[in-house]
Amino acid sequence: MRIPILKLHDCLVVSIQWELDDQTALQFQEDLLHKIHATSARGVVIDITSIDFIDSFIAKVLGDVINMSKLMGAQVVVTGIKPAVAITLIELGIRLEDVLTAIDLENGLEKLQQELGE
Amino acid sequence: MRIPILKLHDCLVVSIQWELDDQTALQFQEDLLHKIHATSARGVVIDITSIDFIDSFIAKVLGDVINMSKLMGAQVVVTGIKPAVAITLIELGIRLEDVLTAIDLENGLEKLQQELGE
Repeated sequence: MRIPILKLHDCLVVSIQWELDDQTALQFQEDLLHKIHATSARGVVIDITSIDFIDSFIAKVLGDVINMSKLMGAQVVVTGIKPAVAITLIELGIRLEDVLTAIDLENGLEKLQQELGE
Repeated sequence: MRIPILKLHDCLVVSIQWELDDQTALQFQEDLLHKIHATSARGVVIDITSIDFIDSFIAKVLGDVINMSKLMGAQVVVTGIKPAVAITLIELGIRLEDVLTAIDLENGLEKLQQELGE
């Protein structure tokens, strides 16, 4: 199973709408980096509204993919982090520092456009 | 397996990035109609860029979901129809009449905004 990655102008949009298993998360990491390279995307919005719980492995993959995307030159915005996910991330010591976040997909795209416009 | 449906302002965006089996197509039909109802979406963009071939069942489901969405008050734009898919649709007698189409997702969203703005 792969997570679809949409291209919207110079950004990529990913909406994760089910709980990720380890294999899907790693596949997603690979797919996203390839797509950033293939499309020369300048920004990525990852919407995780539908994720209710997150474990340490998935949290690490998420943190990694954000840092990898940045290395490749794409700004990442994570949207829709639920209370339980925020609690888990902080408790695991994953602060997602320097990562832009927003309440939902629309706000995330707006934030990204602002950031890229500057 | 379910196809993720993204909400973007008053529109829904669906990107079908793998070949649909019959069960997934029917599940998608149901999910999309529920999401239109739940979000009061005024428009839907269905991007089928990644679909290389389409069979008569999937073509019928696609035609049905477009008509059903319209009944519910949502304008549909289908984007990224490949040559082989266009040939199959016409040969099957599925003309997707009155359906807006566009070459890719960006153009589809633009077309939809124009349509809804009028």
